Amino acid sequence: MTVQTKPSAVTTGPIAGSRKIHASPEGHPELLVPFREIALDPSATEEPFRAYDTSGPYTDPTVHIDLQAGLPPLRTPWLARRGFLPAEARKVQPEDNGNVGADRLVPPCPAAPGVLAGVPGQPVTQFEFARAGIVTEEMIYVAHRENLGRAAMADGAAARRADGEDFSASIPDFITPEFVRSEIARGRAIIPANVNHPELEPTIIGRNFLVKVNANIGNSAVTSSAAEEVEKLVWAIRWGADTVMDLSTGRNIHNIRGWIMRNAPVPIGTVPIYQALEKVDGEPEKLTWEVFRDTLIEQAEQGVDYFTIHAGVRLAYVPLTARRVTGIVSRGGSIMARWCLSHHRESFLYERFDEICDIMRRYDVSFSLGDGLRPGSIADANDAAQFAELDTLGELTKIAWDRGCQVMIEGPGHVPMHKIKVNMEKQLAVCGEAPFYTLGPLTTDIAPGYDHITSAIGAAMIGWFGTAMLCYVTPKEHLGLPNRDDVKTGVITYRIAAHAADLAKGHPAARLRDDAVSRARFDFRWQDQFNLSLDPDTARAFHDETLPKDAHKVAHFCSMCGPKFCSMKITQDLRAEAERLSGLDAKSAEFKQRGGALYVTEDAAD
Amino acid sequence: MTVQTKPSAVTTGPIAGSRKIHASPEGHPELLVPFREIALDPSATEEPFRAYDTSGPYTDPTVHIDLQAGLPPLRTPWLARRGFLPAEARKVQPEDNGNVGADRLVPPCPAAPGVLAGVPGQPVTQFEFARAGIVTEEMIYVAHRENLGRAAMADGAAARRADGEDFSASIPDFITPEFVRSEIARGRAIIPANVNHPELEPTIIGRNFLVKVNANIGNSAVTSSAAEEVEKLVWAIRWGADTVMDLSTGRNIHNIRGWIMRNAPVPIGTVPIYQALEKVDGEPEKLTWEVFRDTLIEQAEQGVDYFTIHAGVRLAYVPLTARRVTGIVSRGGSIMARWCLSHHRESFLYERFDEICDIMRRYDVSFSLGDGLRPGSIADANDAAQFAELDTLGELTKIAWDRGCQVMIEGPGHVPMHKIKVNMEKQLAVCGEAPFYTLGPLTTDIAPGYDHITSAIGAAMIGWFGTAMLCYVTPKEHLGLPNRDDVKTGVITYRIAAHAADLAKGHPAARLRDDAVSRARFDFRWQDQFNLSLDPDTARAFHDETLPKDAHKVAHFCSMCGPKFCSMKITQDLRAEAERLSGLDAKSAEFKQRGGALYVTEDAAD
Repeated sequence: MTVQTKPSAVTTGPIAGSRKIHASPEGHPELLVPFREIALDPSATEEPFRAYDTSGPYTDPTVHIDLQAGLPPLRTPWLARRGFLPAEARKVQPEDNGNVGADRLVPPCPAAPGVLAGVPGQPVTQFEFARAGIVTEEMIYVAHRENLGRAAMADGAAARRADGEDFSASIPDFITPEFVRSEIARGRAIIPANVNHPELEPTIIGRNFLVKVNANIGNSAVTSSAAEEVEKLVWAIRWGADTVMDLSTGRNIHNIRGWIMRNAPVPIGTVPIYQALEKVDGEPEKLTWEVFRDTLIEQAEQGVDYFTIHAGVRLAYVPLTARRVTGIVSRGGSIMARWCLSHHRESFLYERFDEICDIMRRYDVSFSLGDGLRPGSIADANDAAQFAELDTLGELTKIAWDRGCQVMIEGPGHVPMHKIKVNMEKQLAVCGEAPFYTLGPLTTDIAPGYDHITSAIGAAMIGWFGTAMLCYVTPKEHLGLPNRDDVKTGVITYRIAAHAADLAKGHPAARLRDDAVSRARFDFRWQDQFNLSLDPDTARAFHDETLPKDAHKVAHFCSMCGPKFCSMKITQDLRAEAERLSGLDAKSAEFKQRGGALYVTEDAAD
Repeated sequence: MTVQTKPSAVTTGPIAGSRKIHASPEGHPELLVPFREIALDPSATEEPFRAYDTSGPYTDPTVHIDLQAGLPPLRTPWLARRGFLPAEARKVQPEDNGNVGADRLVPPCPAAPGVLAGVPGQPVTQFEFARAGIVTEEMIYVAHRENLGRAAMADGAAARRADGEDFSASIPDFITPEFVRSEIARGRAIIPANVNHPELEPTIIGRNFLVKVNANIGNSAVTSSAAEEVEKLVWAIRWGADTVMDLSTGRNIHNIRGWIMRNAPVPIGTVPIYQALEKVDGEPEKLTWEVFRDTLIEQAEQGVDYFTIHAGVRLAYVPLTARRVTGIVSRGGSIMARWCLSHHRESFLYERFDEICDIMRRYDVSFSLGDGLRPGSIADANDAAQFAELDTLGELTKIAWDRGCQVMIEGPGHVPMHKIKVNMEKQLAVCGEAPFYTLGPLTTDIAPGYDHITSAIGAAMIGWFGTAMLCYVTPKEHLGLPNRDDVKTGVITYRIAAHAADLAKGHPAARLRDDAVSRARFDFRWQDQFNLSLDPDTARAFHDETLPKDAHKVAHFCSMCGPKFCSMKITQDLRAEAERLSGLDAKSAEFKQRGGALYVTEDAAD
């Protein structure tokens, strides 16, 4: 097998109509925070639009992409100042790669930074720094990133749209590094950032910040190269995934993970129990604490930023699932349920939770406490098993905090609309406001093939209610493995849900983009409308299908109504006419005073 | 031009895995209410699933489809008993078809039933019959249809799932004809059913019934035949459109509308101002009451079931839109705004509203009071113009009721999630609970190309809150004309939104289908899962992409995790194991009593 490592092996180049820029927070010229700047038509008399950018160096034509070398390790100088110790690296074992034969072995990524680990008695994790009152470079970086360049805009303050309903969140007008620190110290936000992932462009996950989106990737049986796996990551972040979970199983996963980590500008999450299970021939009964512990260290040393740990699936809860319509649908949950029942013993993840914390703290791997008993159907939503596990996740959250770890909590799943809010409320109450990270939820089970949509409805709602990160669902959910188009559709759909949530919760910068699109639409600036959208390529292609000529891209009408019938055009004429009929507002006031109401003023109708 | 009228010109044949059946309400063997019966695998030990069916005779292989003859006029005997008078039909004018030349004229549909009209002093409309305490055939028919065959099921009563949140709606466990009558009499529901549309399979629109979906169709410049236009209708109802609006403009619209009406089993809506505008060369200023009145009669005689009338766009409100980001985005709204401003006069639709009511009552054409000032962007949501118009629509609703007409109210548009609920509350309060019929609303403006999704989020929510019918949005919204795939995607997406709303509001029959899919999923009855879904073809195709072999359709695993890793499989094993470990529940109780909690019972965690 040849590992394809030429730049052409992954998608590079800017997203249509935009360019990568970097901006530095005041007083920190050394921190280069990435944004995507969308150019607008000169007729717009608007500044270029600055968008949040998850895509990493891949969309920056000035960066030479070389998968063998990995991405530039931008965090190395930050980490160096913290005095972490080079640790002796665990030796790679044949079973780490599924005992694959030499002829089928994917070679390790040559870019292998040395392994770092925290010093006992000194802060390692972002949580520990935050608690110690120390503002890290990561905190300054994410603060600037969250503000979407508003500091640089003359009307930054004016951009605040305080008309959201935030359900007692504490979203400030402007994000400061100190606010980031305080949120992390309270456990209300995390920056997943393993000390062994220097290539990371940090991002923050918490209810008082922009809602984030996770995309899952994983190897498939026909995988032919590490570059192909890296491309899945690159493709997902190109369209807006804030974090990526690598759910690979089977052969070569250790080495492929190495390629992914060294080329990932976003936090990478994994479910270590999957690899542990591989090491015991796929038989859950054979799992041991020792195998699991070894896997945690293996992956932590590679730089994985967060681990899903299903420590809430306790022996006592398993019978609660017996009468469910769809039983246990989480892979990790069912593996652990099987282990517990087979041995008739409490879960070793639960019993050894302290030790898990100590390992994860050493590298600042964040917890994503898994919801192994999440409902797999509308019928099973909000049942006893689900909420029993949530209570345990709350208990574990406090233990993890006590031991210095960053924590987020995974949530359902399949929940009808009227049962979504209580999930958020319970999670906030039980888990001390630790960030919630939900899969959808799907709001109906009747549309396999469209579960990106059934779940986007629930995801938008729960994001509004306070969920910090949404795990995407693709159209192939329940049916098959997503292809490239499915991944893109899933990511864009979840960016819609996240943005709808940001608007509704009143994030101060969210509406800037909606308004920019709307102004472009009203002005018939077609190219601007396409370029400001989440997916310029699709918007442009759809327009081309009906009105392909370039001239139509400046036409003052569109295909829906045609030139004579255009309502926007009529309104523009109306506006001109209204101005001509000088002083309609004045007239209105006059009529109002006289008791008539030929015109209604805005005040009158409010 | 040749009119293609062979059956092959439109899509016929059953939807995969199901067959058309008819069932009669108790005591009414003459009423044949259509359903779609989905066969299940014999291993399921479940009755075939009975689904609501909007597709008309086109999915019934026993019906010979002949577009020239039109559909069977099933309402003719019902209407005959009501003593309506044959009316002298208005003579078709050249301008009705846009003055098209003889060589390009689409011939009229040969199936032209005589024109009926109500007798002065006797009830004509469903509203008038309902107020008079008379239960019509239409009411009995829709009652049976809404119950989804539950009367025929042994566990009909048990199907009630009262865990929804209905926001003070009055959804009964079981729909009776008397309940239908009372809802119509209160103005809370309508059955759009023109006396000149005998081919109609009646459907009810109201917040205490299943949420309905409308799809829009319209001619395009390249239209070559009437059959092509009928096919758009047939295709939309095949996937679940409950009503269809014909938004055609330009040439041949009168004759094409004839073909559509005679072949439509669902209510057809139009916006008569569009055709009126055509008759005055597309110049709004030239519109007159006489032209509009003539168009109303023309279309009412053809059998159109509901008219969008933008009578709420009053002169006084136009200046309220001047400072909007996107002005007036409704075509009808902008036409009327232009007329009002040009003449500096109150809208003739508003001033002549009594006369409009009298015309519409005569044929039982329902009002869809148009929201000509709906917001076209997140920025303009819930503004003074929008709510001023809504107040006027409330005033007009009462006038229409006083004159015997059925009424529904159109709603927005573009609204962020946190501003949706107040739209529903205001509409219910101002319009006396007349059914609300909304377009989306879109919850963000940043995703042209994906507005079926941005709007499905809002549609599901507002449907839950009480909206009776959702107007679909296709992926091409704002960009171009939808093609066949776009129409299907739009309809399926809106069926998802409507169903999610039915689940959340606690419609007693809604969860039956979710549970049937979930059981099929858990049992690995792949074919059942596909066939029970909204789009069996897509679900099956997606599964085939990863696991194409027929054997995999009975496999006890799927492509996501593979045979060793399947969580559902593990749960099934678990369940068997739990049963073997006899009496887990008993043990749980035992441990609980002892103060320990090795097992938690469902009660304990509730």
